[in-house]
Amino acid sequence: MSDNKVQIFDTTLRDGEQVPGCKLNTEQKLIIAERLDLLGVDVIEAGFPVSSPGDFASVTEIAKIVKNATVCGLTRAVENDIKVAAEALVHAKRPRIHTGIGTSESHIKYKFNSTQEKVIERGIAAVKYAKSFVEDVEFYAEDAGRTDNEFLARVCEAMIKAGATVLNIPDTTGYCLPEEYGAKIKYLKENVKGIDNVIISCHCHNDLGLATANSISGAINGARQIECTINGIGERAGNTALEEVVMIMSQHPYLNLNTNIDTKLLYDTSRMVSENMGMPVQPNKAIVGANAFAHSSGIHQDGVIKNRETYEIIDPAEVGVTESAIVLTARSGRAALAYRAKKVGYELTKLQLDKVYKEFLNFADKKKEVIDEDIHQIMKNTNVTAAVVA
Amino acid sequence: MSDNKVQIFDTTLRDGEQVPGCKLNTEQKLIIAERLDLLGVDVIEAGFPVSSPGDFASVTEIAKIVKNATVCGLTRAVENDIKVAAEALVHAKRPRIHTGIGTSESHIKYKFNSTQEKVIERGIAAVKYAKSFVEDVEFYAEDAGRTDNEFLARVCEAMIKAGATVLNIPDTTGYCLPEEYGAKIKYLKENVKGIDNVIISCHCHNDLGLATANSISGAINGARQIECTINGIGERAGNTALEEVVMIMSQHPYLNLNTNIDTKLLYDTSRMVSENMGMPVQPNKAIVGANAFAHSSGIHQDGVIKNRETYEIIDPAEVGVTESAIVLTARSGRAALAYRAKKVGYELTKLQLDKVYKEFLNFADKKKEVIDEDIHQIMKNTNVTAAVVA
Repeated sequence: MSDNKVQIFDTTLRDGEQVPGCKLNTEQKLIIAERLDLLGVDVIEAGFPVSSPGDFASVTEIAKIVKNATVCGLTRAVENDIKVAAEALVHAKRPRIHTGIGTSESHIKYKFNSTQEKVIERGIAAVKYAKSFVEDVEFYAEDAGRTDNEFLARVCEAMIKAGATVLNIPDTTGYCLPEEYGAKIKYLKENVKGIDNVIISCHCHNDLGLATANSISGAINGARQIECTINGIGERAGNTALEEVVMIMSQHPYLNLNTNIDTKLLYDTSRMVSENMGMPVQPNKAIVGANAFAHSSGIHQDGVIKNRETYEIIDPAEVGVTESAIVLTARSGRAALAYRAKKVGYELTKLQLDKVYKEFLNFADKKKEVIDEDIHQIMKNTNVTAAVVA
Repeated sequence: MSDNKVQIFDTTLRDGEQVPGCKLNTEQKLIIAERLDLLGVDVIEAGFPVSSPGDFASVTEIAKIVKNATVCGLTRAVENDIKVAAEALVHAKRPRIHTGIGTSESHIKYKFNSTQEKVIERGIAAVKYAKSFVEDVEFYAEDAGRTDNEFLARVCEAMIKAGATVLNIPDTTGYCLPEEYGAKIKYLKENVKGIDNVIISCHCHNDLGLATANSISGAINGARQIECTINGIGERAGNTALEEVVMIMSQHPYLNLNTNIDTKLLYDTSRMVSENMGMPVQPNKAIVGANAFAHSSGIHQDGVIKNRETYEIIDPAEVGVTESAIVLTARSGRAALAYRAKKVGYELTKLQLDKVYKEFLNFADKKKEVIDEDIHQIMKNTNVTAAVVA
C-alpha cells in the first residue's frame, strides 16, 4: 500500500442506517453493498451483528457477495458481540472485526462507572478475543474526541500490543475543531510506540458541520483511513460525507492523498442510497445535491458561459452529473437569457436583447424559474422578430 | 465594539435566494428580515437592487422596517448599480453598500478581459462612488480564495485608502481548505497597511463541504465578520450555515469569539426560511435537521439515558428544540426499551425486559420505528404482566 493512499471505510450500512425512519431490509442492503464494492470503497461496515437477527442476517449475506472490499462487523468490547460478529463474517473474503470501548472521562464515569485501567483491560481482552477469529481487528476508542491525548496514547499503544491493525479515533459527539482533531492525530503519530505499523482511522460526526474538515485534517496529519457514509447520513447530524472527502482529495493534488474511489459513480450512488433509505438529499448538498452544479445568478451565469472554471471547481462529469445547469430566474442577466434563447431557437441582436430582457425581468419577478416555454411567450409579448437558429 | 465580537452578516435574502426554485416575494422577504433582526444578526444583505424591479422594491421595504441591523445592498463595481442601491437604501437606519470586483486570474482574464491594474482602478472608483452616498462601504474581492495573496493585499490596501470599512474575502468557488483560508486572512492581517481599522469578512461557499470550517478558520485568524445564510442555502452547494458558525463559537468558549445571536430562535428561524423558500432541510442537517438531536442506536440511547452529555454536546433547548428524542428502532437496546415502556406505563423487571426485548427485536426488524402503540402490542404478544406505572 502506498503511503499516500487513504482507505475509504464506508459505514452507510451501519452508522448510516442508525437513523430514525431509515430501516433497510436485507435485499436493499445487498444492493447497496454491491454498489459500494463497485464504487471502490476499501472497507464496508455491514452492520452490528449482535444487535438484532435481521442485522446478523444482513452481515452474513453481504459477507458472501462482496468481491473486493473488506467486510467489517461492529461489536462492543463484549465476548458475545465478538463471537456473533465472527460468525456473521465467516464467508467474507476479507473479514474485519471492529471492537472498542469508550475512553473519555464522561464515558468511563457515567456510562461504565469504571476506571481508566479497567477500560484498557477490557479493550485488550476484546482485541485479543477478536484476533482469535480474524487477522484484521480494528479498535475504536469511543469519544476519543473528548479523551485526554495522553491517556488516548496509552490506550492506542496497549491495543497495538494486543494485535489491533487499525486504530479508530472517533469524534463521537462531533465536538472537535479541525485544528484540534488534526493535533490529536499528530500527537498519536508522535507518541505511540508501533503506530507506524497500524492504520489510524478518522471517524467524525457532523453535529457542528465540521465532520468533513476534521477528517481531512486527520488525514493531513497522518491518518490513512476515513470512516464515512454516502450523503453523510447517520445518527443525529450524521457522519462525514464520503463524496466530500473523496472530492477534496481529488481536487487538491498538492495534499498528495489519494483514494480508490471511481468518482464517476458518486452521483448515482447518492441517488440510490437516498431512494432506498427514504432520506432526501437537500438541494444545496455539496457534490451530490440537485443544485450543486446549478447557476442562477446573473454574474455567475455570465462567468460560466465565458469560461466554466470561473465559478466551477469540479467538472460535473467527474462525479457523474451530465452537465452544469444555467437556470433562468429574476437574478439572471442578459448573457444567460441570450444563451438560453439561442438554445431554444432565437438569435438576438444587442438591441433586441435589451427589449426582451426587460420583459423577461417582469416575467421572472413573478416566477421561481423561467423555463423554455416561457421564453417563447416572452418573445411573443415583446414582438421581437429574432433570427431563428436551428 | 469588543475585539472578540464576530459580526454575523446574513445573506439569506441575497446569496441565499440565488437558488433555482427559491423565489421569495416582497412580503415573504419582509417577514424573514424582521425575524433576522430579532435573531440578532448585525447585517442583513437584503438584495441586489439593480438586478430587477422586484429586488429593488424588496430592498426598499426591508430598509424601512429593520430596526437594529445594518441593511446592505449588493452591487457590481458599476456606477449605475451603486446609484440604484443607494436609492433602495435611502430609508435604512444603518445603510451599507456592498460593492466589488473579481480579483483572481481567472476572473480578470476570462470574465473581464482586463488587467490587475485596471481592476484595482475600477475597485477604487466604485468604493469612492459608494462612499458619496453612505459611510459604510464593504468591498468584495470576488474569487479571493483563488487570488494570489500578494495581489490581494495590494487590492485591500487600495480599498482601505479609498474608504472601505469592511473587506470581504470570498472563497467564491468553495475551493479553499481551512488551513489555507485561515492563512490568507492571517497574511492580510500582517501585510496590509491600515487593516486594523477595518473589518475583515469571511464569505465561504460549500462546494466541498468546508464553508463552516473555512469561516471559523478565518475568524480564528482575525476576521471579525462571517457572511452566512440560514440553513446554509445559496447557489450551488450553498453558503456557510449561520446556525453552525454561531453554535461552534458558543460551544468553544476558549476561542474567545462571540456573537449577538439569540440562539434560542435558531430552530424556528430555520423552519420559517425552509417553508417560505420551499427548500427542505435534510434530516441530518447539523443543528436544525429533524434528526439533529435524535438518538436511535442502542449504545447511544443507553448513554444519553444515563447522562445526556455522553452523546450530546448541545442542549437542544439552547437552539430552541424542545427535547432530544429517543427513537426506538431495531438498533435500540434494552435500556431504551425499558425507558420508553415506562413512559407508556409498564415497569419491567430484568427478566421481563429480556423476554419483551426479544419480541421487540422481531417487531423492529420489520419496521422503521417502533411507536408507543407498538409497545402495547409487544406487551400483549409476550404475555408479560408488568407493574403498571402512573
